[in-house]
Amino acid sequence: MPLILYSDSSPNGFKITIALEELGLPYTLKHVQIDRGEHRQADFLKLNPHGRIPVLVDPESDITLFESAAILLYLAEKSARLLPDPPSERWAAITWLQFHAASMGPILGQRVHFELFAQQPCPEAIARYRRLSEELFSTLDQRLADRPWLAGSSYSIADIATFGWTHIARVIDFDFSQYRHLSAWHERVSQRPAVQRGIRLPAPATGP
Amino acid sequence: MPLILYSDSSPNGFKITIALEELGLPYTLKHVQIDRGEHRQADFLKLNPHGRIPVLVDPESDITLFESAAILLYLAEKSARLLPDPPSERWAAITWLQFHAASMGPILGQRVHFELFAQQPCPEAIARYRRLSEELFSTLDQRLADRPWLAGSSYSIADIATFGWTHIARVIDFDFSQYRHLSAWHERVSQRPAVQRGIRLPAPATGP
Repeated sequence: MPLILYSDSSPNGFKITIALEELGLPYTLKHVQIDRGEHRQADFLKLNPHGRIPVLVDPESDITLFESAAILLYLAEKSARLLPDPPSERWAAITWLQFHAASMGPILGQRVHFELFAQQPCPEAIARYRRLSEELFSTLDQRLADRPWLAGSSYSIADIATFGWTHIARVIDFDFSQYRHLSAWHERVSQRPAVQRGIRLPAPATGP
Repeated sequence: MPLILYSDSSPNGFKITIALEELGLPYTLKHVQIDRGEHRQADFLKLNPHGRIPVLVDPESDITLFESAAILLYLAEKSARLLPDPPSERWAAITWLQFHAASMGPILGQRVHFELFAQQPCPEAIARYRRLSEELFSTLDQRLADRPWLAGSSYSIADIATFGWTHIARVIDFDFSQYRHLSAWHERVSQRPAVQRGIRLPAPATGP
């Protein structure tokens, strides 16, 4: 039975479409249209009580997951791919996955809010999230200075998670071009056919 | 050889001291004093280039990890404890661990900044993070309405991670007493002897 992915065009959603395309796992994609409030409907809240996409349902194991990092860990375990085998690379992948989930994703998400959507301008918040996102880009740039992928020699769920947000950063002009190792890594990831498919599902991102 | 934990008195630090105390694993605790800038020193940046505590070093496997959720996953795998065995509970634990890492921790962290530390008051940011933290408390409260622990019937790293922040919420008066299932869960967790030890290492939290 195919997996079922509930998603919309967003950084967190693209992480999972990219991973599923990379793994070639059969899945049914259900488009949850956030701009129509579909994530607040009772049927969806049964899947994720916090009302956020993505949600993955595996009918085979009867497991329902939310939070993109949890879904990526699940897909890696189910497929035995996208997490390197050697323990040091495996835990590097998990460390950088968590760095993305707990630091980069939330900070860029708050920057989007205050730069693009806040009704009252708050210069301190804008400056704060710009400064913190530069620090994140700089740390990633340093990490990628002497290795092709975040975990080391293997492409992993850490790269996929991080690309979910660098892709959106490009779409909405959060410039990271001065970080040349990070930029070169972004190009390497974006050239993968599964990534090109994943960032168009359920639809390409259009910016704010 | 004992594990080495680099930590300070903070929500993310207490998650790991609580887990290590619960597991009874031998470890050496190194106090990284953030208010003295020790997290910005070259020796520490070799362990975590982003300059954040906690960091765990396992001399046996020669693995160094940062990000509290990655460290909790590592300790659970190393000890084969604190993650339930049945797949549905196991993935529920990982889902709620990630919910904490990517949603609750970052939002409460930003609320601390804007309510307690920001130099220019930003009413929109204060209102935003209060509203978002109420939503998080509410989702947790609903999750805990009919099960003792976040994963279900077993105490897990999801509870430890979440308690790291509800403990600090209590210390700094971010009130969640109206969420009675969450409050009752908080009391259950806080009564564990390992938790009482963990929240005093390297020193008790004193508030802002």
